Amino acid sequence: MCDGGHVLRVHWHDGAQARFHAIWLRDNAQDAATRAPANGQRLIAIGDIPAQTWVADADLTAEGGVRVHFAPENKTVEFTAAWLRQHCYDRPADTRRGRLPAGVQTWDGAFGEGLPRAAYEALMDDPEALRAWLAGVARYGVGRVHGGPLASGSLTRLIGRFGFVRETHYGRWFEVKTEVEPVNLAYTRAGLQAHTDNPYRDPVPTLQLLYCLQNDAEGGESLIVDGFHAVQLLAREDPTAFELLSRYCARFEYHAPGAAHLQARRPMIELAPDGELIAVRFNNRSLAAVTDVPFEHMADYYSAYRRLAAIIERPALAVRFKLAPGDAFLVDNTRVLHARTAYTAAGTRWLQGCYADRDGLLSTLALLNEARE
Amino acid sequence: MCDGGHVLRVHWHDGAQARFHAIWLRDNAQDAATRAPANGQRLIAIGDIPAQTWVADADLTAEGGVRVHFAPENKTVEFTAAWLRQHCYDRPADTRRGRLPAGVQTWDGAFGEGLPRAAYEALMDDPEALRAWLAGVARYGVGRVHGGPLASGSLTRLIGRFGFVRETHYGRWFEVKTEVEPVNLAYTRAGLQAHTDNPYRDPVPTLQLLYCLQNDAEGGESLIVDGFHAVQLLAREDPTAFELLSRYCARFEYHAPGAAHLQARRPMIELAPDGELIAVRFNNRSLAAVTDVPFEHMADYYSAYRRLAAIIERPALAVRFKLAPGDAFLVDNTRVLHARTAYTAAGTRWLQGCYADRDGLLSTLALLNEARE
Repeated sequence: MCDGGHVLRVHWHDGAQARFHAIWLRDNAQDAATRAPANGQRLIAIGDIPAQTWVADADLTAEGGVRVHFAPENKTVEFTAAWLRQHCYDRPADTRRGRLPAGVQTWDGAFGEGLPRAAYEALMDDPEALRAWLAGVARYGVGRVHGGPLASGSLTRLIGRFGFVRETHYGRWFEVKTEVEPVNLAYTRAGLQAHTDNPYRDPVPTLQLLYCLQNDAEGGESLIVDGFHAVQLLAREDPTAFELLSRYCARFEYHAPGAAHLQARRPMIELAPDGELIAVRFNNRSLAAVTDVPFEHMADYYSAYRRLAAIIERPALAVRFKLAPGDAFLVDNTRVLHARTAYTAAGTRWLQGCYADRDGLLSTLALLNEARE
Repeated sequence: MCDGGHVLRVHWHDGAQARFHAIWLRDNAQDAATRAPANGQRLIAIGDIPAQTWVADADLTAEGGVRVHFAPENKTVEFTAAWLRQHCYDRPADTRRGRLPAGVQTWDGAFGEGLPRAAYEALMDDPEALRAWLAGVARYGVGRVHGGPLASGSLTRLIGRFGFVRETHYGRWFEVKTEVEPVNLAYTRAGLQAHTDNPYRDPVPTLQLLYCLQNDAEGGESLIVDGFHAVQLLAREDPTAFELLSRYCARFEYHAPGAAHLQARRPMIELAPDGELIAVRFNNRSLAAVTDVPFEHMADYYSAYRRLAAIIERPALAVRFKLAPGDAFLVDNTRVLHARTAYTAAGTRWLQGCYADRDGLLSTLALLNEARE
């Protein structure tokens, strides 16, 4: 104990040590009066804990944990050594701007075959196949699927295996094929620059699934690019450009009169306040007039945007493949960009797309991991 | 023109003036070769525009707009005076941390009767009533509803009028009533401190609708608090506390074994990189161990959290009401906190709740505004 009982110093068997504040320990007590045993929800509010809380006494439990006696509440709580170790905050803060979230690994075109891949039926029927594939999606931001049924709507069955469709004005899912009067450039034969979808939507859909039902046109290949890798390259090659794209908000807009008018104000490179990467938004079609960059930085902002675009278009960054009927891919739409090459009028390219969110995916993954332990 | 044609200076009739960069003007050209007329999507990428673009010539149009001739593309584009005025960025940047987004107005308990309110059937049948109510929700972050049908699921019909349900593991909607083995403290008779819902979900649901089907227990009143107002009070009364809660990420978690395991790492006060308020997350039940605050700031962080909690609990901030059967309220879950008082075992309190997202609401509002013009 130090600081009059306001701080507890913990020593582990391997020599590691860390300090914990009395108020932090008390608020994070795991006893049944503090946390509901069934779901871990806290039963008390911060105001229920005396502001002047201190550790009156502390000793080791038989299992090597710590038994802490709090005053003035006169309350005793136990913490395991492992829990304290896992939740230690007495360490140098990592504030590198643009650093990766825990458990994330970037990739480029050379990694193509390493990306997660699974058969549709395995994902539907085999929890271990699903678990491994979801773990890959969490790590790499993308997962490929093959051998799915050729029935319309099969994509939402796959989403339902681990999460929930995010319905939008495009529908629960939407048809990606050539239309005579397209409401979106996606519904033409034109090539599309690598992009994230719907940056004009706030909250942006965090997952997108593209599912192929027919693809006998010439061209129409799919490309995916790791946006986290791209912005980390930008940070290395041109730190000022990275700063400009993360310090200022862009604007995105989609306006189809009578159908939808969506607007968002978010940076192209979104960081947590401590610098960790949250999201990349990149879409030439729906970038609106940027008006939140001061005049004196606008020329440099445009140079930075151009520079990021050039990195994203480097062939070495892209994994390229042509979807066959029954193939699909799922991308983390806050990270991985997708593109397609132009295709011919002869033949048909018919995909279905839908949006979903990462929370359901990560929850399913966590539950499958827990079931295996 | 100045800077060798890289900047154009525009003068309006009222004496205002502003500078625009040639590259910005070119990228934001509204002609049919740059933007698809049907939906405004940009048809070119930044790489299609020469990096060294300049204004070779500019003159006024008959309507008082500007006709700009770009080199080296040898391309002429017109901009209206109004469009340029609306998208001007040659002004001092507003970087006040914690400032309100455009069109948002804060409120406290005294404003209670001023909050948007509408009859369920009016929202379903009368576009102008819907428009006015949605405009109120956009401004105040909350809207009340009365006189709705007592049929289960009526809440999703209301959501469908302006947007889409965000389905979660709780279902498309969920029952808020006393359960014998509650998976969530919401499903008990306990009072709940003012909170935002599901901060452990990323992306967090941006809208929540709570709809009353029965309420003859004693107690069980609803309270709502403007979280933007609360954090602005915090910024004024204790700027250091505001900084701590916005500079560091909190952690939120919900773990019901076998059902869901959700985790998020976001600050309690989320700001855009230029300081504008984005979201408030506040939930004593699901705050996990905070481990992203360095040791030397943790005691102050806890003081800041306690201080914000105390502001949120000030009776003067809350609008308080008791829902009658057929009543409902919609909150912007990134801004407005809701609470309920405890209620008795005698009688029944039965609400249904569901989540949705703001993008659909704001799009519907924009379309209704456009239809009126």
